[in-house]
Amino acid sequence: MEAEGTTSEWLAMYEGAVQNLIDELGRLPGVGPKSAQRIAFHLLSAETADVKRLANALIEVKDRVRFCGVCGNVAEEAECRICRDPRRDPAVICVVEESKDVVAIERTREFRGRYHVLGGAISPIEGVGPDDLRIRELMSRLSDGQVTELILATDPNLEGEATATYLARLVKPMGLKVTRLASGLPVGGDLEYADEVTLGRAFEGRRSLEF
Amino acid sequence: MEAEGTTSEWLAMYEGAVQNLIDELGRLPGVGPKSAQRIAFHLLSAETADVKRLANALIEVKDRVRFCGVCGNVAEEAECRICRDPRRDPAVICVVEESKDVVAIERTREFRGRYHVLGGAISPIEGVGPDDLRIRELMSRLSDGQVTELILATDPNLEGEATATYLARLVKPMGLKVTRLASGLPVGGDLEYADEVTLGRAFEGRRSLEF
Repeated sequence: MEAEGTTSEWLAMYEGAVQNLIDELGRLPGVGPKSAQRIAFHLLSAETADVKRLANALIEVKDRVRFCGVCGNVAEEAECRICRDPRRDPAVICVVEESKDVVAIERTREFRGRYHVLGGAISPIEGVGPDDLRIRELMSRLSDGQVTELILATDPNLEGEATATYLARLVKPMGLKVTRLASGLPVGGDLEYADEVTLGRAFEGRRSLEF
Repeated sequence: MEAEGTTSEWLAMYEGAVQNLIDELGRLPGVGPKSAQRIAFHLLSAETADVKRLANALIEVKDRVRFCGVCGNVAEEAECRICRDPRRDPAVICVVEESKDVVAIERTREFRGRYHVLGGAISPIEGVGPDDLRIRELMSRLSDGQVTELILATDPNLEGEATATYLARLVKPMGLKVTRLASGLPVGGDLEYADEVTLGRAFEGRRSLEF
């Protein structure tokens, strides 16, 4: 065990390029130092073509992807696929926080209207106010009188509820139908494992069964 | 809810480049579809320079990193940093399964000899035999008589133990000192949570305390 003058050598554990890749991977969300190391070694022994494909996918995404000028969803053209689709009902706008939420709702195949992506939710703690979200763009979309229903599909948490309440008040003078997604028990879930808020909401929103 | 002829459109949930990046990220070890999506959206809103740096790190690692001609560790030159270091004792070779193990041992600062990276462990289930490991290279390193001790630091599991036993028998005629890392209770651990095999090994290897 010696330590004379070799500290930096000891700290930089891998040689240049490997350590550099581990550092870069470790900056990604949800990738800790151990995962970064595992991924780096996986890539070291992977085919060069596969690694180049990943590198190209990274560069392409920054080169080609932008945000839809209408709804704020991710897009590769001026407008996203949904805004360009003439079969989508322009009278109903579903307001979500992120593009990920659009995908989640699209998977249900239940909704055939349009979207509006806010880019987040109002959160005083994180310093996100109404002006940081795409609310002005939403208001201008609503101004032409074509929209009849606004579905507020922000997350069912504190920030999402606050954002929905804010928007509901803001659009009230317009006389639109404003709805919020139902809260309740997850389908396939176990009643005993539901948290009390969800269970309370499920009671509140109980439906009468028709026979 | 419609379904006419739009199935492929429904399945490819994101537009080209984003979905492509999610797919590529999802191929990395330990990155599931949800993590891949999270990382992709993180990169979408990251600085272009940061994403390009990650892409370059990927390409660099394939361009520059190879394996040390002596010990099999990752290296950027013909020989790795440890094999090039004249201060490292050439009389002691520590045999490990992977380059990651070299880094783990280097962090202890306990070892000042050289390494030999096997590239895995003998595993009949995964079809890895002695010929798939860098055992021939190890034997040729031992043939010059300079090495006096071989530390078998393969993993303390079935495959690692089998590999250590195989190597110990193989080098027996050479009359080297052959050692294996101690098994026992992890430092800082709780005796009651140790598995019975580890606890059994800890008993077997108990040391007398000198006062």
